[in-house]
Amino acid sequence: MSDHVYKSIELTGSSTTGIEEAVERALEKASNTVHNMRWFEVVETRGHIEDGQVAHWQVTVKVGFTLDD
Amino acid sequence: MSDHVYKSIELTGSSTTGIEEAVERALEKASNTVHNMRWFEVVETRGHIEDGQVAHWQVTVKVGFTLDD
Amino acid sequence: MSDHVYKSIELTGSSTTGIEEAVERALEKASNTVHNMRWFEVVETRGHIEDGQVAHWQVTVKVGFTLDD
Amino acid sequence: MSDHVYKSIELTGSSTTGIEEAVERALEKASNTVHNMRWFEVVETRGHIEDGQVAHWQVTVKVGFTLDD
Amino acid sequence: MSDHVYKSIELTGSSTTGIEEAVERALEKASNTVHNMRWFEVVETRGHIEDGQVAHWQVTVKVGFTLDD
Amino acid sequence: MSDHVYKSIELTGSSTTGIEEAVERALEKASNTVHNMRWFEVVETRGHIEDGQVAHWQVTVKVGFTLDD
Amino acid sequence: MSDHVYKSIELTGSSTTGIEEAVERALEKASNTVHNMRWFEVVETRGHIEDGQVAHWQVTVKVGFTLDD
Amino acid sequence: MSDHVYKSIELTGSSTTGIEEAVERALEKASNTVHNMRWFEVVETRGHIEDGQVAHWQVTVKVGFTLDD
Amino acid sequence: MSDHVYKSIELTGSSTTGIEEAVERALEKASNTVHNMRWFEVVETRGHIEDGQVAHWQVTVKVGFTLDD
Amino acid sequence: MSDHVYKSIELTGSSTTGIEEAVERALEKASNTVHNMRWFEVVETRGHIEDGQVAHWQVTVKVGFTLDD
Amino acid sequence: MSDHVYKSIELTGSSTTGIEEAVERALEKASNTVHNMRWFEVVETRGHIEDGQVAHWQVTVKVGFTLDD
Amino acid sequence: MSDHVYKSIELTGSSTTGIEEAVERALEKASNTVHNMRWFEVVETRGHIEDGQVAHWQVTVKVGFTLDD
Repeated sequence: MSDHVYKSIELTGSSTTGIEEAVERALEKASNTVHNMRWFEVVETRGHIEDGQVAHWQVTVKVGFTLDD
Repeated sequence: MSDHVYKSIELTGSSTTGIEEAVERALEKASNTVHNMRWFEVVETRGHIEDGQVAHWQVTVKVGFTLDD
Repeated sequence: MSDHVYKSIELTGSSTTGIEEAVERALEKASNTVHNMRWFEVVETRGHIEDGQVAHWQVTVKVGFTLDD
Repeated sequence: MSDHVYKSIELTGSSTTGIEEAVERALEKASNTVHNMRWFEVVETRGHIEDGQVAHWQVTVKVGFTLDD
Repeated sequence: MSDHVYKSIELTGSSTTGIEEAVERALEKASNTVHNMRWFEVVETRGHIEDGQVAHWQVTVKVGFTLDD
Repeated sequence: MSDHVYKSIELTGSSTTGIEEAVERALEKASNTVHNMRWFEVVETRGHIEDGQVAHWQVTVKVGFTLDD
Repeated sequence: MSDHVYKSIELTGSSTTGIEEAVERALEKASNTVHNMRWFEVVETRGHIEDGQVAHWQVTVKVGFTLDD
Repeated sequence: MSDHVYKSIELTGSSTTGIEEAVERALEKASNTVHNMRWFEVVETRGHIEDGQVAHWQVTVKVGFTLDD
Repeated sequence: MSDHVYKSIELTGSSTTGIEEAVERALEKASNTVHNMRWFEVVETRGHIEDGQVAHWQVTVKVGFTLDD
Repeated sequence: MSDHVYKSIELTGSSTTGIEEAVERALEKASNTVHNMRWFEVVETRGHIEDGQVAHWQVTVKVGFTLDD
Repeated sequence: MSDHVYKSIELTGSSTTGIEEAVERALEKASNTVHNMRWFEVVETRGHIEDGQVAHWQVTVKVGFTLDD
Repeated sequence: MSDHVYKSIELTGSSTTGIEEAVERALEKASNTVHNMRWFEVVETRGHIEDGQVAHWQVTVKVGFTLDD
């Protein structure tokens, strides 16, 4: 892991179920175009409310991937 | 969504199960008196420990609602 | 609770399932040597990615315990 | 100013024109129910984008007012 | 303490004597209308200066109270 | 708005007039290559000084856009 | 710009009109005694309220200038 | 002071009187097992409220001590 | 108070007694050369420890004063 | 420098030697695909440890480049 | 790396030469009693000045190690 | 060290070589007019890039010195 160069990007995924699924949705979408994703860090957890209940969770993650080919 | 004025308040809910349920408990209680809640942001996730295990989760959310009637 | 002195330490647990289990793993391990743990606060939520999916969650908690007796 | 007790609340106003007007909209709305507002502090400046242009500004202010009489 | 929902508000009290008295003044005033206050956290300590001396201390606290009846 | 995945990027625009125009310049430039921009947040407001006056404002915004097609 | 040494100071200007003018007032006043000011960064935007309206804006900037003669 | 290695730990003391005594209580307790404590920094000032008054102050300090023997 | 320009500086005072006296010592010293000091904000509270007890408190304040006349 | 629009990205480089080399490695790699890089800011300095010694440094930088052609 | 529990501690090392050596001094000292150190993060870089020059650098690192045996 | 009053200022030095030299350049320049400098803290590490390489490092330090004569 020592001699890679990483780039990190910020993604927001959403889920009606909870935090973990919102993160996985963001990664799943990003994996179509970004390869070599290695780690993530949750930077914000928000959500929308409808009728006094959580309508969906929105979780923002910083995701790091290697620039090496 | 453009011409509303929002007020935000800070609530803490708790749950023996997990983060999501603690947030929903806080919203459920607040919805008795606060209407038009639109979004929340998790600002702190804490908990109490008993016998080396999580006794309950305590999650603090900032909740925004419209002041418009 | 008023006249205790607390010390807090920082632990990181991991789980393939989610945030709650990662915290419980950290507490379970620490409870072998640290007694009287009373509260925790989540300070960082990260994870590793393999093949575009969350391989495991890594959650860091600050844990407080009483120094008394 | 020395012996008052202040309470502060957080409001978000919006405007299609700019930051200053968004703040004034928030204060104007709040002044219907909150009296003795004395100061504000801008805590967040956001906005919505439509067709590559700012559709409206959303500015969040913390507002302090006296609890006295 | 586990199954309450808390709301927290932000108050600023002042005193010519010191930090502790400023906090107590804020709580004393708030207790006229807010019941079930349980904890506070000091979030800002400021003051006014006259003739090169502290004229009064102004201390802002976040105060949590139970929403339960 | 619930089931999108967002990516956010950071841009800095400048203007000799003020903060609002600097933000709009950044968005206008970005809209040539980035579509579906939905929101922004001001993260830094700086500027250059010449002859004791503001020569131009430099405002950095985080901009979110949908990854969905 | 590479081999200068900069000192930075913190100033607060005010205006009844808006943020930009408050910054320019601070710079104008400082330029009487500080030369070679090169950049500024807005660190706080506050204001006073009278009768439910913004009475004046108070903007604090960190200002950098070269120590070289 | 130049060639020591320091370790820092985090302690919380409490007092019914005020901030200073809460810090001294934490240090007094820790000095039973930790030697060579050199400095502290206040990182959090909280407290519990009973009947609208401060029941006790809880102050958290980071404390540095030399690892050298 | 609306049309002044303020400069703020950062000072650290110390006391064997407590936080309030450390702040007053810093202001007293500064008042020899700085006039028109108007407000302060506590930005750091530290101290030195000798023999397991607080030897002296060191409190850092940001102090604002008017640049006018 | 006044009328450019900048985009900033976040990169992490590593080195067995030290902080400066880790930054230069990140820039060198990025310069293959990103042109017109103008400035950087160090946002995190970490590293890996093997056998009680620094195995390699990992430094994260935010890098700004002009979007103009 | 996935199923370990980590504990992190905070250490400060010093050097007359520079930041890297100060970190290595801290790790070297800690490795006498702490095993399985895996990573570090620089959290503060300070130093002492004598006769207008850096007398020594003081660098604080958070160090993580596995609790597993 | 207990009964001094300190003032702290913020300086930025630069170097084509690295972080340590940039700090020393800032101190060297400041020592022409500021005496009794005692400590510094690195608050920002930036730099300029030319042709994909670090052209020079710019390091900002907060420097404390005694006001006592």
